[in-house]
Amino acid sequence: MSGTIYGVGLGPGAQDLMSVRADRLVRSARHIAFFRKVGRPGHARKIVAGMLRPDAIEYPMEYPVTTEIPLADPRYNARLSGFYAECTQHLAVLAGTGEDVVVLCEGDPFFYGSFMHLHSRLAGMAPVLVVPGITGMSGAWTASGTPITWGDDVLTVLTATMPEEELVQRIRDTDALVVMKIGRNLDKLRRAVTLAGRDDAAWLVEHAQMAEQRVTRLCDAQAIAPYFSILLIHGSGRRP
Amino acid sequence: MSGTIYGVGLGPGAQDLMSVRADRLVRSARHIAFFRKVGRPGHARKIVAGMLRPDAIEYPMEYPVTTEIPLADPRYNARLSGFYAECTQHLAVLAGTGEDVVVLCEGDPFFYGSFMHLHSRLAGMAPVLVVPGITGMSGAWTASGTPITWGDDVLTVLTATMPEEELVQRIRDTDALVVMKIGRNLDKLRRAVTLAGRDDAAWLVEHAQMAEQRVTRLCDAQAIAPYFSILLIHGSGRRP
Repeated sequence: MSGTIYGVGLGPGAQDLMSVRADRLVRSARHIAFFRKVGRPGHARKIVAGMLRPDAIEYPMEYPVTTEIPLADPRYNARLSGFYAECTQHLAVLAGTGEDVVVLCEGDPFFYGSFMHLHSRLAGMAPVLVVPGITGMSGAWTASGTPITWGDDVLTVLTATMPEEELVQRIRDTDALVVMKIGRNLDKLRRAVTLAGRDDAAWLVEHAQMAEQRVTRLCDAQAIAPYFSILLIHGSGRRP
Repeated sequence: MSGTIYGVGLGPGAQDLMSVRADRLVRSARHIAFFRKVGRPGHARKIVAGMLRPDAIEYPMEYPVTTEIPLADPRYNARLSGFYAECTQHLAVLAGTGEDVVVLCEGDPFFYGSFMHLHSRLAGMAPVLVVPGITGMSGAWTASGTPITWGDDVLTVLTATMPEEELVQRIRDTDALVVMKIGRNLDKLRRAVTLAGRDDAAWLVEHAQMAEQRVTRLCDAQAIAPYFSILLIHGSGRRP
């Protein structure tokens, strides 16, 4: 009998914003896997602090590369691909011995998550179940105190990695906006928001739903935004 | 001392997909409010079946109009506006007597939700706290078994209410797509997907994360989609 591999969405960061299903799976799991940067505790692991069984066996999956090699360099994909294959193999072997494994996923597993790279490789190797989670962007717009979409608003979600001109065009072309993966792209994003004429409407939410949560107008934000930053422009659709 | 009004996201429908925070609030609430169509039990109320305190006092807020008056008719907005004002007044009076009230919200309260119309009116009248929830769209893409966004994919979320030409343009112009509010617009949406050349990629998810969940290719879907339908086109971005 094969074990099951669970991809469990933890939500935006506060422990009690994980679903009841996720909470039960995390607390009862004998095998826990999670991604992290080398030398860091790992954000997903930090979210579940104090929740694990005392005899839980942890499998940290450490990215062999994050920003050291440019995305466009073929070595980047090669290194990551080998890494994901190795993690997949480890999880599949565990499942093969009948053990269930809970893979911790920040936010929602199927929304820009690393777990997806295991999920696609595990097809046919082991049963996989995915538990959705509250996305980081839901955490961010809740933190902002203002609804993101009203009536028939169009919402565009994009990453700040795209070229500036395309950013400008897409910001112009939407009612509501969420921008992820800001990091080193903050200056470019700021210029794009200005060129699109939305300076007054843009908010930066850092560490949404965590202790360090901060909500600022984009024009007041510092030069370097941390990894957990999300830019928001709220929609203003029909409201009776 | 004023009570607090909680806008509580219940998630896509399965009871154990509500957050631990939402679960606690719902189970301990003495006052529960929720929207519903006249003559129906109400979907939000159905999600929390069996969870309420035996002495909980329920306040069903019944929409005075749903599809009987066209959206463009000024009477539509007038009727709804009066209704929201009345609900707001009732909740504010309760809070004024020191009672907390939990308002049940399907999905996430700040994402196309009716609660937003109370939230904006309650400003300055009573303290309001919002608990984010797993969106219906997260429930839908999890049900589809395929991640919605990879790498730097652009995700567009729109409502099927918009004109066909704009639908076509926006479907052409995105990597990943979520369409809400399908209902009577299914035929138009189907034509738009075909004109955008995405027939093979479009999936319809009905009643995601509920007992009646069904995932079908759009081309195999019936003529009338229920209210709880979401159309998905999955992104296909970078995957090492």
